[in-house]
Amino acid sequence: MNDSLDRKITARALTREAFVPFGDVIDKPSYPERTPINGGHARRLPPMAEAMVRGEGGRVSISLIEGDPYKFPLKLDLVERHPLGSQAFIPLTPDPFVVIVCPDQNNRPGKPHAFITAPGQGVNYRANVWHGVLTPLVAQDFLVVDRAGEGVNLEEWRFAEPWIVLLD
Amino acid sequence: MNDSLDRKITARALTREAFVPFGDVIDKPSYPERTPINGGHARRLPPMAEAMVRGEGGRVSISLIEGDPYKFPLKLDLVERHPLGSQAFIPLTPDPFVVIVCPDQNNRPGKPHAFITAPGQGVNYRANVWHGVLTPLVAQDFLVVDRAGEGVNLEEWRFAEPWIVLLD
Repeated sequence: MNDSLDRKITARALTREAFVPFGDVIDKPSYPERTPINGGHARRLPPMAEAMVRGEGGRVSISLIEGDPYKFPLKLDLVERHPLGSQAFIPLTPDPFVVIVCPDQNNRPGKPHAFITAPGQGVNYRANVWHGVLTPLVAQDFLVVDRAGEGVNLEEWRFAEPWIVLLD
Repeated sequence: MNDSLDRKITARALTREAFVPFGDVIDKPSYPERTPINGGHARRLPPMAEAMVRGEGGRVSISLIEGDPYKFPLKLDLVERHPLGSQAFIPLTPDPFVVIVCPDQNNRPGKPHAFITAPGQGVNYRANVWHGVLTPLVAQDFLVVDRAGEGVNLEEWRFAEPWIVLLD
């Protein structure tokens, strides 16, 4: 009966490097480079992520999601993925939120990884990356850049036994 | 000599309706509809804008721009447009900023319209819409969703005589 220990996952700090297998991190501190624009009145940071859509009639949509807070430790029994497009979440307030992703193992989600964002960090999930639903710690609004249009772009996976996600 | 009066433009409140000829407004108050998602733990607002890119190798890029403040009245002598893609600016702080756009008149910018945003409002310029450079009133960061990739995607127009943009 080592199940309970094995099912626990502790959230760690989100970094570009750690997130490479899953997608992109959108944040300022990871990108020290600046390109002056507008006659020196603004500075453009490097491209941080790309929105990708595939499939007939796919379009890149910009919208907002209002997220309610989750309590931790979190019982994680569901993850999902979007085969037809990437999905970016950029917080509109500096509150940290929790990002949960899983490697794929033969078309099923493997053991989850949990990350806690630094203030202002956003993420872009690559198409088909298993991820948990949006889990803010306080009521929080997010800008979302993802696919709109026809096609089945959602696959859900319910774990037979839930994972427990801890904050440090 | 009625030039000086004729060259003055006063910024008005940005609304979806007023901005229809130029693009989309990204904001919460304009979109009262909510679709519950994630088992009721979040609410998705309707799609507010679409990122559009055209031309060989065009991609939808997500990045950040740091903007320096401008003083008003503003002497507007330059506008630009992007023939190959839309361009969205979403402020990451609630400070208002000024949005300047021009109708097209025979491939030249017509008389500018100036708008002042409500807190949190962002905009998405349609491809080929003449617009002023980003003009925040305080130092402000913006999320930008626009085209990356090869191709000439910038056209600038310098007015022979500047316009004067006033705040209210």
